[in-house]
Amino acid sequence: MFTWPVRVYYEDTDSGGVVYYANYFKFMERARSEWLRAVGYEQDVLAHQQGVIFAVRSAAIDFLKPARFNELLHISAAVTHMGRVSLSFKQQVSRMIKGDDSELLAVGQILVVCLEARTFKLKLIPSNLKKDLQSAG
Amino acid sequence: MFTWPVRVYYEDTDSGGVVYYANYFKFMERARSEWLRAVGYEQDVLAHQQGVIFAVRSAAIDFLKPARFNELLHISAAVTHMGRVSLSFKQQVSRMIKGDDSELLAVGQILVVCLEARTFKLKLIPSNLKKDLQSAG
Amino acid sequence: MFTWPVRVYYEDTDSGGVVYYANYFKFMERARSEWLRAVGYEQDVLAHQQGVIFAVRSAAIDFLKPARFNELLHISAAVTHMGRVSLSFKQQVSRMIKGDDSELLAVGQILVVCLEARTFKLKLIPSNLKKDLQSAG
Amino acid sequence: MFTWPVRVYYEDTDSGGVVYYANYFKFMERARSEWLRAVGYEQDVLAHQQGVIFAVRSAAIDFLKPARFNELLHISAAVTHMGRVSLSFKQQVSRMIKGDDSELLAVGQILVVCLEARTFKLKLIPSNLKKDLQSAG
Repeated sequence: MFTWPVRVYYEDTDSGGVVYYANYFKFMERARSEWLRAVGYEQDVLAHQQGVIFAVRSAAIDFLKPARFNELLHISAAVTHMGRVSLSFKQQVSRMIKGDDSELLAVGQILVVCLEARTFKLKLIPSNLKKDLQSAG
Repeated sequence: MFTWPVRVYYEDTDSGGVVYYANYFKFMERARSEWLRAVGYEQDVLAHQQGVIFAVRSAAIDFLKPARFNELLHISAAVTHMGRVSLSFKQQVSRMIKGDDSELLAVGQILVVCLEARTFKLKLIPSNLKKDLQSAG
Repeated sequence: MFTWPVRVYYEDTDSGGVVYYANYFKFMERARSEWLRAVGYEQDVLAHQQGVIFAVRSAAIDFLKPARFNELLHISAAVTHMGRVSLSFKQQVSRMIKGDDSELLAVGQILVVCLEARTFKLKLIPSNLKKDLQSAG
Repeated sequence: MFTWPVRVYYEDTDSGGVVYYANYFKFMERARSEWLRAVGYEQDVLAHQQGVIFAVRSAAIDFLKPARFNELLHISAAVTHMGRVSLSFKQQVSRMIKGDDSELLAVGQILVVCLEARTFKLKLIPSNLKKDLQSAG
């Protein structure tokens, strides 16, 4: 499963002493972006060359335990369904602890749709990208 | 229904030309905070005097249409369920358009829990607060 | 002097218990945007109709005292110099305290330049806007 | 010179199509945090074990060229002066371009002070830390 490391800086926390809840959505997008890059696609190139952007259509997170300043988190990204114009992701946020062990902090379900970059209208996921995503598993 | 106005500044947008998806969660929290203030409670006072904070346990948004730079949005906050330690909110983001008309952009479901400020353990919603929330409807 | 109220929400704070330093730059931009609106100019209209945007060329803040969660701040915006393609602002962040009194928390110097929206090249401030800014004082 | 890579995600950009100006201050703090970690100090440990935190006393950036979505930036952090209670940093933001070449986008001057974590009063930089910072150059 693809995971991406995220370090918690002051910018991510709030005065409750923990990571501000909306920022988990940022972390999850970083992991989705890096997953796409790992499959071989750069989003700026997709936009300029194929006129394709991805936008979040719905996003839901269950917050199980708080993350704190200076912790190292791992954010996973796994496609649970690929439609003609959409991708469903399950994403997890885990805290790295001693001995390669980890603790689950949050679980998200994110539905991303493929849009025509100029008009924001729904657009078929380009076939080359789709094929590569399917190979990537 | 309680609503709170939010102006879209550059800080809220992204290079797709629209409000960045995670920022709707910020807007919704602003509306919940102002709703609580309208009921008569300041969160810093609640924390210092009653040792109570509220934290988001789960958050989900459906994004229907994008909001854009410089638009004036209205964010609603309505309690759909009040438990012993939790509050469920339905929240809507609407764009104000000419003639007092509005257009629905996003709908959220937010579950907030009451915590002991020092330990982050679940805590009964204080009875005075609960009574005032029930009167507020 | 033009001032704009800003309420401190969790999103603005960090785990040090105070407003995160970079967020003062957001607050100052909100005040500059509202100042321009008060003079009669909407930035989205300026961009679409006159092809003009404003961008920050340099920004500096001295942080005197920390702002905290739930405080009400006032952010001022005053033009100290108007050039052919630039505007210099002095901006202050103050905390409102009892009896209409206030306490100075931060002082900023922001240099904004006028750009051609499409190319990002320097552009003369439109003469109608310049005249109105000068009248506004 | 110490540098830290930062990828530009949607969260960092604004509807002008470039990185939002306040976010450069976040990037610079990430580099300062990683620089301190590279010297051997974790800020959460410093806070809990030595009662020491660092806070920004003043921050200034000159913005030379805009950074854009999906670019890879390098953020440098170099101490230009170490006082009894303060550290002055010069920091640069560069865009990585083909062939290990880079382009300078922004230059910052950041003054950080050492504070007693509980009271926020100025505090001498711990001598072990100071010694290690001096060795690090």
